[in-house]
Amino acid sequence: MANFGCSDLRLVDPYDVAFREAVSAVGGSHVLQSARVYATVAEAVSDCSLVLGTTAGQHRVPQQTVERLESGITAVRTHAGRVALLFGSEKFGLSNDDMSFCHGLLRIPTSPETPSMNLGQAVAVCLYELVRTESVPVARAAPAVPGTDAEQLTRMLLEVLDKSGYTNRITAVSTEQKIRRWIRRLRIGSQDAPLLLGILRQILWKFDKQG
Amino acid sequence: MANFGCSDLRLVDPYDVAFREAVSAVGGSHVLQSARVYATVAEAVSDCSLVLGTTAGQHRVPQQTVERLESGITAVRTHAGRVALLFGSEKFGLSNDDMSFCHGLLRIPTSPETPSMNLGQAVAVCLYELVRTESVPVARAAPAVPGTDAEQLTRMLLEVLDKSGYTNRITAVSTEQKIRRWIRRLRIGSQDAPLLLGILRQILWKFDKQG
Repeated sequence: MANFGCSDLRLVDPYDVAFREAVSAVGGSHVLQSARVYATVAEAVSDCSLVLGTTAGQHRVPQQTVERLESGITAVRTHAGRVALLFGSEKFGLSNDDMSFCHGLLRIPTSPETPSMNLGQAVAVCLYELVRTESVPVARAAPAVPGTDAEQLTRMLLEVLDKSGYTNRITAVSTEQKIRRWIRRLRIGSQDAPLLLGILRQILWKFDKQG
Repeated sequence: MANFGCSDLRLVDPYDVAFREAVSAVGGSHVLQSARVYATVAEAVSDCSLVLGTTAGQHRVPQQTVERLESGITAVRTHAGRVALLFGSEKFGLSNDDMSFCHGLLRIPTSPETPSMNLGQAVAVCLYELVRTESVPVARAAPAVPGTDAEQLTRMLLEVLDKSGYTNRITAVSTEQKIRRWIRRLRIGSQDAPLLLGILRQILWKFDKQG
């Protein structure tokens, strides 16, 4: 919850020993410290105008529509008022009675072979979906080197190839074209060009020193 | 992993006691039973042509671009070849050396106040994002070289750098990481690797002949 900026944790009839241990644990977060305990689901969601339950959706046929998390959660974003996400116990999930307090049910699109999730992981996935960017910005690649830099790299690499004996006099022209295409195909970024130039310079220096 | 249809779990140098306990636990899933253990990250990702690391992105300034999970993960969907998602230990995350094996880094959009996630929850969120509905049809890129080829290129380039006097003994480790990152960042295609290998081999031949 803390990872995704949520702080209002409410527990219904928790297993006391485990809960007290968790709260007093070193590093127990402020979320746990300020958690409130209720006797019933009704009390826990009494001030919430939208309650969304979560279900693996396998063992029972709920009377309510079960929506996939991705689409169902949009109701939270557009809702004017307090929203509760309701999770069942790790072992049994939400009961039919619990679900009757829900305005809708969400299902994380898990594999049919292993539908039921660990509780903490289910919570993380639901809250992640909430904060997830709706419009995914396309990844911006690092600016590629301009043509002059690409040509400088090409020239220097060709000099290395020539001095190393890689270039055959007969195929020199086609090698040059191949190298030129290759340098461009790599899409060397502006931040990468100096590294490659430095390497090539060093190799040439070594050749000159030894040759 | 089983919830989201993933089965190929690979562990690098796991804490043996905990791992053996987990595998032998009643209800230990087939994912754990068939998990493979490796001594190094290099071996674990040797057959993967795309390695994406995960980071809370707070404690270090990585040399690599860190993309938000939503956009960064699209590379997995469009990649032609085996992909590894690399997670660090719960306590320390990925080291700079671990990250140098990555073609890219992903960050789950957690709150700046509590950026670091529980490992199991981070895995669940990343895999959920992968199976989440969304048609992101992006043009298929040319198949990238697998991990072993990228590492072969890295090793050979490091040998060239060493023999040319480029590598300084004091900064050798950071140079190695820099070069490893750089080779992966270039995303050298399968058709480009032989050319680069040939060039490096020729330079080494020339060094040996002259030295």
